[in-house]
Amino acid sequence: MAVKDIAYLGPEASFTYLAAKGIFPQENLQPFTSIPECIEAVAEGKVDLAVVPIENTLEGTVPLTLDYLFHEVNVFVIGELVSKIQQHLLVHPQNAERWEQLEKIYSHPHALAQCHKYLYYRLSQVPLQQYGSTAAAAKLVAENPDQLIGAIANASAAEKYGLTIAQENIHDFHFNHTRFFVISRENTRIDEAHKRPDKKTTILLTLPTDRSGALHQVLSVFAWRQLNLSKIESRPLKTALGEYFFLIDVLADEEEPMMRGAMEELGALGCTVKPLGTYYTYETP
Amino acid sequence: MAVKDIAYLGPEASFTYLAAKGIFPQENLQPFTSIPECIEAVAEGKVDLAVVPIENTLEGTVPLTLDYLFHEVNVFVIGELVSKIQQHLLVHPQNAERWEQLEKIYSHPHALAQCHKYLYYRLSQVPLQQYGSTAAAAKLVAENPDQLIGAIANASAAEKYGLTIAQENIHDFHFNHTRFFVISRENTRIDEAHKRPDKKTTILLTLPTDRSGALHQVLSVFAWRQLNLSKIESRPLKTALGEYFFLIDVLADEEEPMMRGAMEELGALGCTVKPLGTYYTYETP
Repeated sequence: MAVKDIAYLGPEASFTYLAAKGIFPQENLQPFTSIPECIEAVAEGKVDLAVVPIENTLEGTVPLTLDYLFHEVNVFVIGELVSKIQQHLLVHPQNAERWEQLEKIYSHPHALAQCHKYLYYRLSQVPLQQYGSTAAAAKLVAENPDQLIGAIANASAAEKYGLTIAQENIHDFHFNHTRFFVISRENTRIDEAHKRPDKKTTILLTLPTDRSGALHQVLSVFAWRQLNLSKIESRPLKTALGEYFFLIDVLADEEEPMMRGAMEELGALGCTVKPLGTYYTYETP
Repeated sequence: MAVKDIAYLGPEASFTYLAAKGIFPQENLQPFTSIPECIEAVAEGKVDLAVVPIENTLEGTVPLTLDYLFHEVNVFVIGELVSKIQQHLLVHPQNAERWEQLEKIYSHPHALAQCHKYLYYRLSQVPLQQYGSTAAAAKLVAENPDQLIGAIANASAAEKYGLTIAQENIHDFHFNHTRFFVISRENTRIDEAHKRPDKKTTILLTLPTDRSGALHQVLSVFAWRQLNLSKIESRPLKTALGEYFFLIDVLADEEEPMMRGAMEELGALGCTVKPLGTYYTYETP
């Protein structure tokens, strides 16, 4: 089988890279600098697949991914990756002994938020600077040994850029995982060993009209069929405050008779439904 | 009446400042550098009130505000402010003619996201740099006239820091509003002229157990009473992927008999309920 081209949210040593490498060790992984670029690359056929973050235990849904899938493209989710997230405080080896005197700490806004308490209580005097990604922050620290700066990033970034882990596991909550979607133009699915047994279907929808109880009615479609929802999320429609679309994760296969019935009824209720497909979940390192 | 101390998410000329100034023109507005610090200042009694962003038309809920209100403090929402958000590309007056040759554009991640299409199609060669706030980015540009850099920020920041508006209204969607919560330790409410007629009650809750259809059951409590929900939002509980708490906005007063009945039943169903109070909505410039 030909080697696949797979876009991921870079740079190399990002959490997305680690997740993608875990499930696609043999494929050609290509870093892209933003989530829209990853998804566009699939939609335009420049790559076969893309791996992008969709949700983190602490930070919640990644709005850009969800919005882009709803508003901008017609693609499918063919697999879900779940990875444990561990954040460390990294410094240049020259400054390993002086990490308590850091003058600035760089990282992605999500990583800074994930370590909020640690930073607030242990390093409250150190200014924080938001940066494009955890790995880019690590690279910056590696390139500026003369500056007393640190980065919050993963162990793979420390290794890649030759940095010292000054403080390990500084994230506030220790059940910190991120979900990644594997995106394709085809409504297929990744079917390999080591998957979790349950299949999941993701549906994006808008409610019929702004009538009282519309969401309740939509949930009734699933409830009486005992179709279990593992997630429901509202996102603004970008038209006016108070207008939303919804992401619903159902623990079922879209080809099951009950699911086919549910989807038909959602249409009949006046919902606009955009199914993203049925897929398995894989745990990656 | 004594002048009130009111914390807001700074710096001065931030969108939060504009909203706060609109409703509290006579009070002592104090900038704080983060949302948790604003809310903590109220909880600890250092200030009387705080104004913090809770939701934007494009970006959705501000996770930090919602999480902090749920996990960290016991405070109330006593009013809601709604402001129109207009983003401009600002440059130093010296560089007014050369805005198309900018070497970097700084702004808050939300502002960058709000102008994503404009930046992608018109200025795709210019690197973007996330920054703590739109106003701080404007300040940076003002302090570095020799650098070809720009900021995305509002007109008030342009005025305060003496910058030129190189490109006006570059936000992608033109129904862009932000909601702000006015936070207090007392469960009271702001009751002035020029408010919208409807009262709104915000409730945070966790579902009884992870049983199928629990959310449907919760929504039934409101649906059969014809209590209209204007918003429902799920946020991770930070314990494991797939466990959430919910924010529900109900267009009703918590003192109405139907609402008292609904709140009682939510408790009886096994929900943990944290009511944030009933409040009015004010449009501010």
